[in-house]
Order: sequence, then C-alpha cells, then structure tokens
Amino acid sequence: MLKIAIVGASGYTGLELIRILQSHPEVMVTCLTSEQSAGKPISDIFPTLRGICDTVLENLEPVRIAEQADIIFTALPHKAAMEVVPTFLELGKKVIDLSADYRLSDPVVYGEWYEPHINPANLKNAVYGLPEIRRGMIREAKLVANPGCYPTSIILGLAPLLKNGLIDLSSIIADSASGVTGAGRSAKVESLYCEVNEGYKAYGVGGVHRHTPEIEQELSLLAAKQLKITFTPHLVPMDRGILSTIYSTPLSPISNEALSELYQEFYADEPFVRILLNGSLPSTAFVRGSNFCDISPLVDSRTGRIIVVSAIDNLVKGASGQAVQNMNLICGFRETMGLGTPGIFP
Amino acid sequence: MLKIAIVGASGYTGLELIRILQSHPEVMVTCLTSEQSAGKPISDIFPTLRGICDTVLENLEPVRIAEQADIIFTALPHKAAMEVVPTFLELGKKVIDLSADYRLSDPVVYGEWYEPHINPANLKNAVYGLPEIRRGMIREAKLVANPGCYPTSIILGLAPLLKNGLIDLSSIIADSASGVTGAGRSAKVESLYCEVNEGYKAYGVGGVHRHTPEIEQELSLLAAKQLKITFTPHLVPMDRGILSTIYSTPLSPISNEALSELYQEFYADEPFVRILLNGSLPSTAFVRGSNFCDISPLVDSRTGRIIVVSAIDNLVKGASGQAVQNMNLICGFRETMGLGTPGIFP
Amino acid sequence: MLKIAIVGASGYTGLELIRILQSHPEVMVTCLTSEQSAGKPISDIFPTLRGICDTVLENLEPVRIAEQADIIFTALPHKAAMEVVPTFLELGKKVIDLSADYRLSDPVVYGEWYEPHINPANLKNAVYGLPEIRRGMIREAKLVANPGCYPTSIILGLAPLLKNGLIDLSSIIADSASGVTGAGRSAKVESLYCEVNEGYKAYGVGGVHRHTPEIEQELSLLAAKQLKITFTPHLVPMDRGILSTIYSTPLSPISNEALSELYQEFYADEPFVRILLNGSLPSTAFVRGSNFCDISPLVDSRTGRIIVVSAIDNLVKGASGQAVQNMNLICGFRETMGLGTPGIFP
Amino acid sequence: MLKIAIVGASGYTGLELIRILQSHPEVMVTCLTSEQSAGKPISDIFPTLRGICDTVLENLEPVRIAEQADIIFTALPHKAAMEVVPTFLELGKKVIDLSADYRLSDPVVYGEWYEPHINPANLKNAVYGLPEIRRGMIREAKLVANPGCYPTSIILGLAPLLKNGLIDLSSIIADSASGVTGAGRSAKVESLYCEVNEGYKAYGVGGVHRHTPEIEQELSLLAAKQLKITFTPHLVPMDRGILSTIYSTPLSPISNEALSELYQEFYADEPFVRILLNGSLPSTAFVRGSNFCDISPLVDSRTGRIIVVSAIDNLVKGASGQAVQNMNLICGFRETMGLGTPGIFP
Repeated sequence: MLKIAIVGASGYTGLELIRILQSHPEVMVTCLTSEQSAGKPISDIFPTLRGICDTVLENLEPVRIAEQADIIFTALPHKAAMEVVPTFLELGKKVIDLSADYRLSDPVVYGEWYEPHINPANLKNAVYGLPEIRRGMIREAKLVANPGCYPTSIILGLAPLLKNGLIDLSSIIADSASGVTGAGRSAKVESLYCEVNEGYKAYGVGGVHRHTPEIEQELSLLAAKQLKITFTPHLVPMDRGILSTIYSTPLSPISNEALSELYQEFYADEPFVRILLNGSLPSTAFVRGSNFCDISPLVDSRTGRIIVVSAIDNLVKGASGQAVQNMNLICGFRETMGLGTPGIFP
Repeated sequence: MLKIAIVGASGYTGLELIRILQSHPEVMVTCLTSEQSAGKPISDIFPTLRGICDTVLENLEPVRIAEQADIIFTALPHKAAMEVVPTFLELGKKVIDLSADYRLSDPVVYGEWYEPHINPANLKNAVYGLPEIRRGMIREAKLVANPGCYPTSIILGLAPLLKNGLIDLSSIIADSASGVTGAGRSAKVESLYCEVNEGYKAYGVGGVHRHTPEIEQELSLLAAKQLKITFTPHLVPMDRGILSTIYSTPLSPISNEALSELYQEFYADEPFVRILLNGSLPSTAFVRGSNFCDISPLVDSRTGRIIVVSAIDNLVKGASGQAVQNMNLICGFRETMGLGTPGIFP
Repeated sequence: MLKIAIVGASGYTGLELIRILQSHPEVMVTCLTSEQSAGKPISDIFPTLRGICDTVLENLEPVRIAEQADIIFTALPHKAAMEVVPTFLELGKKVIDLSADYRLSDPVVYGEWYEPHINPANLKNAVYGLPEIRRGMIREAKLVANPGCYPTSIILGLAPLLKNGLIDLSSIIADSASGVTGAGRSAKVESLYCEVNEGYKAYGVGGVHRHTPEIEQELSLLAAKQLKITFTPHLVPMDRGILSTIYSTPLSPISNEALSELYQEFYADEPFVRILLNGSLPSTAFVRGSNFCDISPLVDSRTGRIIVVSAIDNLVKGASGQAVQNMNLICGFRETMGLGTPGIFP
Repeated sequence: MLKIAIVGASGYTGLELIRILQSHPEVMVTCLTSEQSAGKPISDIFPTLRGICDTVLENLEPVRIAEQADIIFTALPHKAAMEVVPTFLELGKKVIDLSADYRLSDPVVYGEWYEPHINPANLKNAVYGLPEIRRGMIREAKLVANPGCYPTSIILGLAPLLKNGLIDLSSIIADSASGVTGAGRSAKVESLYCEVNEGYKAYGVGGVHRHTPEIEQELSLLAAKQLKITFTPHLVPMDRGILSTIYSTPLSPISNEALSELYQEFYADEPFVRILLNGSLPSTAFVRGSNFCDISPLVDSRTGRIIVVSAIDNLVKGASGQAVQNMNLICGFRETMGLGTPGIFP
C-alpha cells in the first residue's frame, strides 16, 4: 500500500480525493493538512466521512508531511502550491498538483494571468496531466500539473478536430457552464445559497478568465500552431458539473457521420471518454460523481459549423478523479483503478 | 375597465397573465378557459390565487368567450391557437397570441418547422409583438403575435448591431439557457424534478429548435438582409429565466466604450431595457418576476469578437409581461402600466 | 406622500421592504442606510432595483436619517436596533423595528436569550406587531416590534385553539422549516450554496432557538396562562418560505368539521389569512412573494391529535410585508395597501 | 459470482441497485426487466450507466427471469410485486422485495391500507428486512420484505427507547421530510420540477400515509405492546434524503448524557448507524449516496421531551442499499460488502 498525503484537505477537491481514494485498493490516505482546521478530525468538517475517515488535520509542515507519504496531492490555491511543491520534490516525493501553478509552461504567461512565478525551475519538470493527450509523459513524471476543470472539458472536446487539422483555428468559441463547487468553499457573499440559487449568469466575459491561457496552450500544442479562443464561463445553480458547448468552423464541409466516426476512433481506447451518437446529448447529471467525459460532436447543417458538447463532473474528471487517474499512471497501477463507478443519479 | 379573456389559463403563461393583470388598473379578467380543468376555479390549479382570483375555468367555446371580453389572450399550444383566433378576429376582438402560430410571416416556413398552417389569411394581419422594434405597428394591430422567449432575448441583444450594420452577418452564434418553466406544465418524465435538478444540458443542438426561423426572420429584417444563425438552447435547473450569450464578429474593430454608447443610445427611451456598463453582467436572478431585459455588450479584445449577454424572465418579458406591454400599446394605455415592479430577489 | 427611511437596507428584509413599498401609493422611500455599503447605490447591491430605485446608501447617522423620514423601518441585527431606535422615538418618529429587540416584554427574558437589554424603558411603548392578534394597539403605537418569522407562522396557527381554550397547554410541539433567506445575507461557510443545497437538517434542537421565548410569550397571552412549547426549526434548500406543522392534544375530542369552522370564523375578516378546507394543504410555494398565511387545521382521527399546518413567506408575512401591514395600521391607510399581490409561482 | 435479477429496473431504486451492485465483488447483475422499456439497453434510460451496464431490458416473464438469476430483487409498485414473487419462490429463488407487499404481517391490515392481498400464504415466510433489528431472521430468510424509507428512519430512531421501555407509548410524533425521489419516476404534474422546486409542504397529514401501519407494526413489536403514532411526511425540494424528527415523552426524566450512552451502546456494533454526540445534528446531505443512518438523540430540558433526529438516503438505507445489506446477510457475505463508500458531498 502506498501512502498518500493530501495537502489542503478541507476544500471540496480535497474531500473528493478522500472519497475516491478510500475505495482504491493500492493506496492508503495517511496524512491530511488544513491551515484553518488543523487539530480537528476531517470528519468534523465533512460529516460524510464520520466512521470512514476520522484522520486529524495537520498543519502544513512540508518536511513532516513528506515523511508520511509516498505520493502527495496538493489541493491548494494557486501560489500556496508552489510554495511547498519544491520541498516535496526535493525530498523525492511524487506530486500531483491540483492548482494552476505548474500548468502554464511559460512563467511569463503565468505572471500575466496570476502573479510572478516563484518556482519557474520546476515548470520544465511538470507534465500537464491530461492522460488522453499525454499518457506516456505522465507515466514518467515526478510532478503532474492536474488540469483545470474548464480546460479538461474543452481540450477533450476539441482534440480530435485539432489533431486532424480540420477546423479554422480562429473560429473557436467555447461557451461553458459550471456548478457552484467550482467557486470553492470560502465564505463569500456571492457564493451564498440565496445569491446563487435560481439564477444563471455569465462571468469573466471577454477573455479574462484565468483558464483561458491554459486552454490556449494545450489547444495550440494539439494544433501545432498558436491559436486564440473566445471562452465564456457561466454559473449554474447546481453543485457539480461542467458542460462546454464548443463552436468551430470546419475547413471543409464534414458530415455528422464522418464526425462521429472521427471521435469514436480518436477515443476508441479511452476508458473515461464516452462518445454519444445519433443525436444523444450529454448532461452534467449523467457524469455526476464519475470520472467520465461525455462528448457529442454534431454538425449544424444550416450554417456548416461544428458544435461539440462535452460534460464532466468538475470535481472528478475536472479535478480529483483525474488526479487519481494520474496517480495510477505514475504508480503503474491500472489506469481505472478506484474510478470505475458509474456516477450517481439522481 | 376593459374585459379580458385568457384562453388556456391553466399553464404557466396563463397564470403569469393573471398575476400581472390582477394589479393592472384599467382591465379586469372576466373569463378563463382550460380544456382539462373546466368547471374548477383557477385557484384550485394555482393556490397562489386563492382569495384573489377564484374564477371558474370554462370550456373553450370561442363565441361565448368573445362575448365576455374586449381583449383576448390566447395562451395555447401552437395549432390550437390558430383554430380559434380567426373566430375571435371575426367577432371584432383584439387578440394577443402567445403561441407560435402567427409569428412567422411565411406560411411555408411555418409548415417546415411546425405543420401546415390552417389560417394563412391572418398572417398578414399579425404584427410581431416586440415593442422595442415595432411599437408603431403594434399600436394599430388587431392581432399581435407575441414573441418567443429565446427570440426576445436574442433579438433585443443584437438589434443595435444589426440596425447599424456593424457585424458580419454570417458570424452570429447565440448560446442560450432557459429555466424549466420554458418546458411548460405537462406531465413528462424528462421534466420531473429529479430528472432536471442538478443537471445542465444542451438540447435541440444543430439548428433544429423551432425558435430558429423566428429569430432569423426578425434578425434578417433588422439587418435588411437574409441571415442564418447558430442557435443552441440549454436547460438550467431553475424555474424562470433566459440568458443568451451572443457572439459575433464586427466588420471593423470597435471599442468597449463605443459599444456601450451604441447600446445606451439605441435603447435610451426604452422603459424595459437596461444596459449594464463597466463590466457589470446580467443574471436571470435580477430580472425574475419583472419585465426587464438586461443587456451587457462587451468586446473580447483578444479575439476582437463582440459578446452580448442578455437576460429576461422567460414568463414575463419572454411571454406574459410582453403580452401585457402589447395590450397596453393596442389599448392606448401607458406602456408600462401594471409592469413597473422590480422583480423579486432572492 | 409620507417619507420612509429603511435603516439596514442591504439585507434581504431591507430589499423586500423596498420592493413592496415601491408600489405603495401613499409613501415614498427617501432614505436607505447600510454600514457596509454606504456611498453605493442600492441597485449596485441588488441589481433588480436598477432603474427603479438607485438611491445611494447612507451611513447610519440617526439624527440625519430622522430628518428625512416620517416613518422609519429598522432592519438591523438585534442590539444594533436598540442602539438607534430611542433616538428616532425621541425625535418623534414612528418606528417599525424588524429586529428582536422590542419583541420580548420582559428585559430579563431578553437578557437570558440574547444579551443585556440597553433600552428597557421603551419596551412598554412597543407593541408586538401581529395585526391579527393586536390590531387596535398597533394603530396607536409609536414603536412596533415586528414579529419573527417562525413566531408569525406558529402564533397564527394556534391562536384559534388557545383563545378558545381547546387544547392541553403542555402538549404543543411546533416543527417548522425555513428557506435559507432566514439565515440572512452575511458570508458564512454554512450558508454557501454547496453546503445548503440538496440537504435538509434540523438545527437549534431542544428549545435553544431564540424565537422560543417570543413564541411562548405570545401563546401564553392568547391562552391567558403561562405555557411552554417544544419548537424545532429545520433548514430547507429553497430561498423563501416557512412552514410549521404544529401538534397539540385537544382537551376533548373535536371533529374536522368543527375545527374548520372554528378557524374560518376566527379569521373570517382577516385579509391575509386563508383557511384551507377539505384536506387541502399549504405549501410555501403558494405564498411566495405574498403576505398571506395559509392554514390547514386537521384532526388525526387515529390518535386524536390536532395538527395545524401553516405557511408564510418568511420575508413577507414573516418580515417586510407584515412591517408594511403595520405601517398601514399606524398611518391609518387601508391595511392591505401595497400588499394585494397574489405571490409568484413558479 | 451469484447472478442477480432486478425486476423493475427502470425506476430510481432499480438504478440504485445497479449502481451499488456494480462494485460488489461477489455478484453479477445478469437480468433487468422493465415493462415500459423492454428491448432498450438500461443505459438508454439512465445514461450514467453507459459503458458500465448496457444490459437490455426484458419483459417480466417470471420463469425466464428466474432461470437467469440466483437472487431476485423486485423493485415494483405494490400489487405488481405479489403477482410475481410467488413464482420466484416456487422456483427456489431468494427474493428481496422492495415493495410494500410483504411488509405487513397481517393481510387484513394490508387490505385496509392498500387493497386485498393476493398472496397471504407467503406473508409468514417474509422477514421484515431491517438488519439492525432482525439480523438473525434475515440470514435464514427466503423472502425479505425490504422496509420503507420513512419506516427505516423512524424505527432506527426509536428502537433504543422502545426496547428499553423508556417512553410513554402514546406520546410518539414523527415529523419526517423526504426528497423527491421518494415520489418515484412516473410522469405526474405534481412531480414536475417547477411544481416542486422552491416549495416545502406537508402531505398525507392526519395518519393517512401508507407507511403508518408499517411503522406502527414494527414499533409495537419493539415495545412489545400495541401503539399508535402521529406521522406527518413532508416534501423537500431535493433529490435524495429523509430526515425524521421524532418526539416522545420519557416515563421518567433522562439526561442528555444517559440518552447518548443508551444509543451508543444499542448501536455499538452496527456498521451503518452513526450516533452523533455533543449537539452534533444529522443532515440528509451527509448521508447522500451512502448506507448510513445518522442519529442524534437529545433532551429538550425545558419541556422534558426526547427529540431524536435521524437521517438516511431514502434510495440507499431507505431502499436499495438496505436491500443489498439484506442480500449480503442471506448470502452469507460480509454485511458491509459493496456498501462501504462514504457518500458524496456536495
């Protein structure tokens, strides 16, 4: 049994890591940290865990944490992650970082969208952890930069088109919507139940959301050419889920059949990507609690545009499930281990 | 006091008409019909109305209905509306029809998207009832075709751009999301609470939603040129509201300031359109229960695209509130009469 | 037109006062205060009000506020209210206080449940503002202590039984459930969307909720004898509404018919109490946005218990609507003025 | 691997059985039936199952079903169950019935609350499947009558008090609230999203809900004396969960400490009952997706009443999870097998 530490365990992605790992046959969660709640059992914060995981939360003392674990998940806000990740790496631990700190390969870009990067040296060691795109590199990685939730849904939605050079690279518009767990668990008026409930809104409109450069970096790599997109996130009154509706213009007309075939082939061996056919469309409800990404590629025959709809659970394939998938890869476990459940509906 | 009949009163738009008209100082609801619930007081169907409107629902006998009313609102499914509207018109009544039956000026197009039109003769008498675009004609109308909910949000969002010839007409993508009242009040598994709750999904993807030709008809008139759009509706787990995020490419670059000014001027005298400035963005929560359409026009400086976000309450500005606004116009009342409330939040 | 000040306007009850008063024909809101948001227009806090009420929020300087208003609503937390109410009264203003500060006639009891009372002198001037019970006294009042939300639903539910001495006073159990607006608008983790959504829970179990002494004071007055109750509040994932299911044992057996008659007679002239008959039961959904209290009295024939179910909108009849009803009484307006709307459904 | 048939697989309890059994190491679901959807893969009905369980739904031909299975779960409406269960038993299959048909030991009582019983002969063979109360008998059973959701929450909440003869048997009031999955998956207007959302209501008030005799039967057995209760169910706008707040009067005063100790001891060895201490209270959110029953016993020191709050997931411990727990018992598997997950939050 490998020993696992989760740094930043009192947020929703931390809880989701515990939930998933608790039924993983090859690992054992031995250490949890939380700056705010150190000294309390995690089950005081999340009573779902009562009797299942009553581990006491510790302060974030990197050396002491590293001593207790083989693999470390960092589920911290950006900046806080890069303050501790170098220590974990120096001590020979493998790290799966769920923050944004190691996703952008260029520290200048990071600086433009976040703040000055304080650990640029490790950027070259970090592998962007989207297994469907970069499985081989992840297997060898010491540091995995676990992708953002919006990027996961959009990159998986567009990869077959970009890899095959089928679309006008200036035509991409990604219109995405997320459940409220995406806003995290900190106390803010705008995340209160009554402020969010019964409302639907856009935010970060006009290319200002911080996931934009991450999406563009990965799409550009897939296209082998620098590209820019229009990306608009929305907030939906529900706990979990991201659905992206992605528009692009094909370079030459394509049929629905050819498009379906392309996606089926591209993802034929992927255990967590389901291509929906015959007009069947994804819903976040059908991936809730699971590591699946459901994708429908369609052609709008009236305008010729390609519309790809993709859905994930932002806490699973968009965060903690994908992190476990990456852990399986770097540990040499079966990739689907601990992730085989069908999700929960309703 | 003018007398009002509401034909098809046991649906959500019927109820919303009663709610709004109940505080209108110049009219009195005298007659309500429902095929399914004839003989019962409307307050048995909608207990909110207990003690306020206990009118007994009648069968839909057009001549008898017409005798009791000066103005008739038809809140019926498509086809059912055009089966009775001609009789009302022949009897000299003014009709505001909330169905799709008189929205498309070309019966051939209607036939393609719905079914053969059985009353094409009255299409030329019908005025598309979007006051911000066609106020003068509505004032003179005998038959108002009250716009659909998605079309209202999209047409108001794009009118300033199209009227001024500012965008590439082939570039329009409207990504819209609606609350569940948009699906009506009939018993279907897919509208059950547990099927809808905690899920977000696209539907009618690829140009197949029936509001498409209505949107294109009106946008083409505004642009003075035939155009096609990509329109994708989504379903949000909430009762009310439509938000449209509309993408287009300007013919020449435009600044955020110029865009704001354009919208402010275009809608300067409109009592129900609110233009949001300085990055403020609409939410369906802020128009719930009111007749407002909130619009934010923005430029994505990275890609040059224009993004317009518009929000309405689908049951008010998207249906019954707009119908009352139209009634005010055809009756010569002050346009905002009965519609001045700020909406309800939370 | 009387001039109205709302002190503490940036909470949900403040907003609800503005919403209701905006359509009241005899008053005009001239002054709004908010310690946190002074200097901003209220419509920045609550965008529903854009274009309808853009009044700039002021600091709470009592003398300056009093100069601008004839009637003052204090929508402050407890303690903050009694810090300013005395000044308003000294300056000759009528005050309707929505806090708990003047509801308990005995300052010792207040001290036990809240903290030491700093203005006991005015307790004897305060009238508990439940018009159905104390209309005459409210008309003469200078200071109205507007009832709590849970107390309103429970007192109205039990008044006919207690006034007529029909039940065992030791048998009363009130099991109530509230929407989340009841928790206010301050940023707390436990009020976050994802913490509240999809969960139902009891809180304050065992007679520790602060509404307990208020309920008991008023029920004891109705019974003309000191009594104690068991009161359990619950939290429901919805914005608005309180429903109380109240159990008691009749002193002698009573039929459903006799019970219905009793309630109908007791509330025969009340404009805002609706007695439901023939097994019809209230829902918070049917009073949302309205000032109604819907009540079903029933007998459980198997156990002989009386079960009364009552529903209100906690922000309307449970707070701001009732405050306006009280304002109408102290100003000599028609009691229903501004409150005649049927609520909004769905 | 034992082979499992689920009869009535297209409802929510059927789906939940599949979800749970899919990760059970000792069984394999081989056969699913649905009268409405025979011929379709179950994953067409519930797309969460795509790629995980695409079994084609069959018609309910009992003999053919029995041939394919060792254990049969019947997840049918009442009456439909007793039409097929006898055949399964005659063919030597073990049956776990999730309907009400074999829960009431007296067919006369069944007839009063449901309809005439058509298979009274098997009532004596049926064991009421609440393992915490009747583990030994379940192990030997051929036919398990899986308890109702409300009864599970109430019986587990009261068992320690009744077994120890601590309360006045005429004093019990159970006030319960359920999520909407409790209403099943059939298309009814009252279960539509917009009818249920944002509303809280009581139903079946006055001892008319069909779970009443089931609760009373089991409580009477625990008390070794016939008793009656007042039971009021409520509907909460959420998918899953039942919370019962249960009131009773102790025969002699009892302290919070003694009560906590009593419950901890009574349930000391139970893997699925968690007793909350020190004022900690259950929420349905903390048992969602898990087989736990969380219970807080408390004393209201002001009135002397005992208040027990218990929470379950109605689809898991209230239906399918408990059914699997029963299967584990009758098959000799470890009782917690396949049921060890902590639930999903948020």
